[in-house]
Amino acid sequence: MMLDKLKKEVWQVNLDLVRYGLVILTFGNASGIDRKKDLVAIKPSGVSYDDMKPSDMVLVGLDGKVAEGTLNPSSDTPTHLALYQAFPGIGGIVHAHSEYATMFAQAAKEIPCLGTTHADHFHGPVPVTRFLTKREVKADYEGNTGRVIVERFAGIDPLGTPAVLVAGHGPFAWGKTPDEAARNALVLERTAKTALGTLTLDPGRRRLPGYIVEKHFQRKHGPHATYGQKKEGAKT
Amino acid sequence: MMLDKLKKEVWQVNLDLVRYGLVILTFGNASGIDRKKDLVAIKPSGVSYDDMKPSDMVLVGLDGKVAEGTLNPSSDTPTHLALYQAFPGIGGIVHAHSEYATMFAQAAKEIPCLGTTHADHFHGPVPVTRFLTKREVKADYEGNTGRVIVERFAGIDPLGTPAVLVAGHGPFAWGKTPDEAARNALVLERTAKTALGTLTLDPGRRRLPGYIVEKHFQRKHGPHATYGQKKEGAKT
Amino acid sequence: MMLDKLKKEVWQVNLDLVRYGLVILTFGNASGIDRKKDLVAIKPSGVSYDDMKPSDMVLVGLDGKVAEGTLNPSSDTPTHLALYQAFPGIGGIVHAHSEYATMFAQAAKEIPCLGTTHADHFHGPVPVTRFLTKREVKADYEGNTGRVIVERFAGIDPLGTPAVLVAGHGPFAWGKTPDEAARNALVLERTAKTALGTLTLDPGRRRLPGYIVEKHFQRKHGPHATYGQKKEGAKT
Amino acid sequence: MMLDKLKKEVWQVNLDLVRYGLVILTFGNASGIDRKKDLVAIKPSGVSYDDMKPSDMVLVGLDGKVAEGTLNPSSDTPTHLALYQAFPGIGGIVHAHSEYATMFAQAAKEIPCLGTTHADHFHGPVPVTRFLTKREVKADYEGNTGRVIVERFAGIDPLGTPAVLVAGHGPFAWGKTPDEAARNALVLERTAKTALGTLTLDPGRRRLPGYIVEKHFQRKHGPHATYGQKKEGAKT
Repeated sequence: MMLDKLKKEVWQVNLDLVRYGLVILTFGNASGIDRKKDLVAIKPSGVSYDDMKPSDMVLVGLDGKVAEGTLNPSSDTPTHLALYQAFPGIGGIVHAHSEYATMFAQAAKEIPCLGTTHADHFHGPVPVTRFLTKREVKADYEGNTGRVIVERFAGIDPLGTPAVLVAGHGPFAWGKTPDEAARNALVLERTAKTALGTLTLDPGRRRLPGYIVEKHFQRKHGPHATYGQKKEGAKT
Repeated sequence: MMLDKLKKEVWQVNLDLVRYGLVILTFGNASGIDRKKDLVAIKPSGVSYDDMKPSDMVLVGLDGKVAEGTLNPSSDTPTHLALYQAFPGIGGIVHAHSEYATMFAQAAKEIPCLGTTHADHFHGPVPVTRFLTKREVKADYEGNTGRVIVERFAGIDPLGTPAVLVAGHGPFAWGKTPDEAARNALVLERTAKTALGTLTLDPGRRRLPGYIVEKHFQRKHGPHATYGQKKEGAKT
Repeated sequence: MMLDKLKKEVWQVNLDLVRYGLVILTFGNASGIDRKKDLVAIKPSGVSYDDMKPSDMVLVGLDGKVAEGTLNPSSDTPTHLALYQAFPGIGGIVHAHSEYATMFAQAAKEIPCLGTTHADHFHGPVPVTRFLTKREVKADYEGNTGRVIVERFAGIDPLGTPAVLVAGHGPFAWGKTPDEAARNALVLERTAKTALGTLTLDPGRRRLPGYIVEKHFQRKHGPHATYGQKKEGAKT
Repeated sequence: MMLDKLKKEVWQVNLDLVRYGLVILTFGNASGIDRKKDLVAIKPSGVSYDDMKPSDMVLVGLDGKVAEGTLNPSSDTPTHLALYQAFPGIGGIVHAHSEYATMFAQAAKEIPCLGTTHADHFHGPVPVTRFLTKREVKADYEGNTGRVIVERFAGIDPLGTPAVLVAGHGPFAWGKTPDEAARNALVLERTAKTALGTLTLDPGRRRLPGYIVEKHFQRKHGPHATYGQKKEGAKT
């Protein structure tokens, strides 16, 4: 068996999605990529989280061909592959129909940056894609879902804004690792919930002043990051 | 004792309703049918979920007569029987007063198809019945509740749209098996919650483009279904 | 020690309030009455639910004097006593600041009867009291809280509508027993939550047709009740 | 090791924030102060709650210098220090991005006193700060966050109103001890949630009559407090 460590990591992250309250039943899927072998480990389609084992993770090449595994990979696999191809810096992807992010996706509205939790994780609004055309749905639905995401990220750094809402569908989140992708999906859900509440209190609410957004984003992401324990140059 | 396997399945599904967060106290009920014997196994009325045993499930004929069991069947039994008679393809029914589906039922509003989670499970909006008339309430309330559901499904495939909202009351969901009925009830609740949020963000929100609805519905239900592991013709 | 059985029942019901998600920290209180001895067992004030023992329940006479117990009774005791005196049919009372019922209480709005879950338990809207006057607050705040509840129930059967919202404060619920009072408090909370959602979907929503309200209320409460296992004249 | 008891208390309160549902992942932080030694024990930055030990709490002087500990203190430490310096009566501080309090903070709206739960804990509205200026963000962001809180509390007793919303950010709560600070953060979250619901039901809702606010606040805080077991002069 190839890439046992990656498979175990992807399996664990799929279980985390349940633990975080982001998925129910067999919904949702997580994947991770080995960039040296260009192989993606992904959740099998429609398998119960209770029964799933690390060895059930399916290995798929970037061309979509199954390299190892007896189960069908997630039906959303072509979307994952399109993102791994277009965003070389990412190492893991999570897809869920989590409640609050899906409310915004269904409304085809981006999540504006209304607070510092948002700014800590997403550099600007969480973007929403356009709807796919009839032709795109018919030809290669899941692959084209990936392509409209990539199209929407023209000019946006995918590691600075590691999530997107697909209009009428739900969120995808990613990160340098599968675990980071799952944490970003959790923060996205929390961010969507608090944004909905803020917009209920003040429907015309505008985004946070830009200099506060920048401060928070750089505090966690910039070269002078001061959050956590392992960054170079951290304050003491 | 007859139909022990069905009774156990129905008992388990009744407990699942609690686990899924769809019912509290003794609310809600699930049933399953043996189509060869035309016998329905259903939860007894007003019994605590903690104390309930598989053998407590009551067997009822389609004429409403108890065939086996010492407890009273659920007071909603005539509604279940009306649905089993009118919808020959279904094998299980679930009734709950789950929170978000009940919000729509109380507003007498159908749940519009605003996203792909909805489209994956319900082919079009989740319909709402009319209110029963005074005469219908007086004569045979529970039976007539079933009849207004059947009336509302004129021209709708009950397995394509396996749930309904009874105006001023709450949801019924069904499926090929009792377990599928419970999962549809859970998805219905999730769908209602995200629809409420989407309508809060955009009160005039219209339904998803029809070609996306069709794509998702056929992906899970059509002859060329690509979701899961057991379907013929699944993509690899 | 007197009335050990009642104390244990009241202790258990206080713990149920936590289990039902109706109270946090030391908020909320439940009591029960022995109508022969005219003694009320009630939760002590400000004691942690984790530490509380059945023997900590305080026995209080209808005149407000402690008959047994070393701890102070709940500061809301005079409210409980006023209700026990005015409503001779009730045997238990629960007070909580549960979230959704409190939202309506703070808005000083009654909960309209929008659905059958409501109608099964509350015969008409759940009423809201007026605000206490400055004089009433100053003189005997907790006792007068009971008195404005009793004033509001002029012409209403307290066992037909076993709950009230105190304006700007929160709900009180009651029943024939402490356990029934707790279950009514839980149903009240659920009813308030679904009503809020329904009113969000349709702010002008009017109450359920009267004949449906009557049917549901009588199904559980009337002489021809058909719900549960122990009622005379139940359908089979 | 110094101040082991304080460290353990602060560690416990940090875990309570998770148990109360106020924080996710590594968000949030709690601290406590030894007023004799003027040393603050605070959560380390970005460490998982599962792995955190009492000895990981970092000791920091009021000048911001680490007195003991190998980990970086929370990046919000300068905010805590500014509050300890300005509010000599407080012994513990909690910062969380709890959902409902954050909704108000992001809307830059104070939480009006709409009910008695609020009045029991917060004497008047929970205030919201102004946004920091660009200069304040650039120069000493976390320290200035503390300073705008202190500025907002001109004329307000910090122990009478033991919480604040920082505009666009989230809540800080405090108390005489770290444990009291955590309980105030929990009540704040509950208060924000019920306020949002009340404002949804009645957007123009005004605050509770002042004489009811005073009654409740004094019932728990005043010299004639009647709540709980340990106060002098409590009613029996």
